[in-house]
Amino acid sequence: MGNDTNPRLAEIMSALVKHLHAFVKDTRLTSEEWEIAIGFLTKTGQICTQERQEFILLSDVLGCSMLVDAITNRRPKGATESTVLGPFHVENAPIRDHGTVISLDGKGESCLFEGRILDLDHQPIEGACVDVWSDNADGFYDVQQPDIQPKWNNRGRFITGADGSYRFVGIRPVSYPIPDDGPVGALLEHLGRHPWRPAHMHYMISAPGFRKLVTHTFVGGDEYLSSDAVFGVKETLVAPYERLQDAATLWRSPFDFVLTPE
Amino acid sequence: MGNDTNPRLAEIMSALVKHLHAFVKDTRLTSEEWEIAIGFLTKTGQICTQERQEFILLSDVLGCSMLVDAITNRRPKGATESTVLGPFHVENAPIRDHGTVISLDGKGESCLFEGRILDLDHQPIEGACVDVWSDNADGFYDVQQPDIQPKWNNRGRFITGADGSYRFVGIRPVSYPIPDDGPVGALLEHLGRHPWRPAHMHYMISAPGFRKLVTHTFVGGDEYLSSDAVFGVKETLVAPYERLQDAATLWRSPFDFVLTPE
Repeated sequence: MGNDTNPRLAEIMSALVKHLHAFVKDTRLTSEEWEIAIGFLTKTGQICTQERQEFILLSDVLGCSMLVDAITNRRPKGATESTVLGPFHVENAPIRDHGTVISLDGKGESCLFEGRILDLDHQPIEGACVDVWSDNADGFYDVQQPDIQPKWNNRGRFITGADGSYRFVGIRPVSYPIPDDGPVGALLEHLGRHPWRPAHMHYMISAPGFRKLVTHTFVGGDEYLSSDAVFGVKETLVAPYERLQDAATLWRSPFDFVLTPE
Repeated sequence: MGNDTNPRLAEIMSALVKHLHAFVKDTRLTSEEWEIAIGFLTKTGQICTQERQEFILLSDVLGCSMLVDAITNRRPKGATESTVLGPFHVENAPIRDHGTVISLDGKGESCLFEGRILDLDHQPIEGACVDVWSDNADGFYDVQQPDIQPKWNNRGRFITGADGSYRFVGIRPVSYPIPDDGPVGALLEHLGRHPWRPAHMHYMISAPGFRKLVTHTFVGGDEYLSSDAVFGVKETLVAPYERLQDAATLWRSPFDFVLTPE
């Protein structure tokens, strides 16, 4: 490498070459296997579009995304843990009033999500933006079915008041398979792995003076909690789902989030 | 992984995850850097076509291709060493008579290539197929310039007789840069590395009962011999180039190849 190479790039590339060569030596990788790998990587790049990111999926199923997240987002004890962003977040979802129903397609079991956004001393954070999104009852995000689902189905942003609370009505999310019709799906099949993610609600929470938190809450009792295809589950993120007697709303999932100062 | 996963695939994927995670931990890779990597891999896949294989190029410039070649093609002492195939080989080049001129565009300094194909006991191998290819005097292979160069320019196959000898007239090859207008070229630039390969003649030699040999001979004295962008140079593959007095042919490059039994 040249003398004026960016030191961080030089560090990363040196480590990459070291570990790549160690991998090839450890496995005594043959030319034929190398050709299969070249073909796999090429297909993985070529299936990517504006709507589909197969390399992120590959990173996810190899546990790489969660590892990078763990390194980047170390948080103090007591702060809510982060997990993968996933490929389905959309910027600038509509800001809704507290209590609004965000499920617009009339499908699924309604669920009240409520709780508070707190600092490390458990004091409420005013003016936090709580950006939420989930799949619908068929296991698809709105952006996966733009011709079928209403725009912004199961999405919205909520701004906390002085008590730090948020409240909205969505559906109890359902588990779903990651896109498995491409090279990564074929890899999972060869490995005898299923492509399912346990049901979860996505949260991206930001507030002035605090680090942005990207996380999920998982539906307790989901059959895939211990075998998430992308390794995104953390025990502390499993939320309760309480059956309500109120006929209009079937479930209630309370969860408080604790942010870390910047 | 499932119980009926192919054992070799399981071994390779376990090693991949181990080394990938070690790389991420060693470098403490951040989410931002991970995003750059995802973008780089995606672009590398998307620039690939039937004529261009950017992932092979990436493997080449990281020294991975030569390492896989070294593992796959271990040879006994005395056998000619192998090197990278490169992306410019074409199957089924015309079979020519010994002594034929394969440079069809009239460019470059003519050179007589001759020598013998031998076994480990230095006995001649009859019926060996010597498949050769090189760039032209402008540093391009015919397949890179299908509209400019004659078909099969600087290519041909020669079959050895009882004395095991081959002989053809090409040009003294010139050094050339690997394709550097894509993601791999940009990476090399960021690393302060040049994209040049030292001048070389490609050989693929096969004979019944012997292992196929894929190799080059390099032009001694080339300025890039010690800094080949793809790490393909081995000292034993540097060939002499002797200036001839014969006005019709300017150079002579003798080289004997020793094959390994199957």
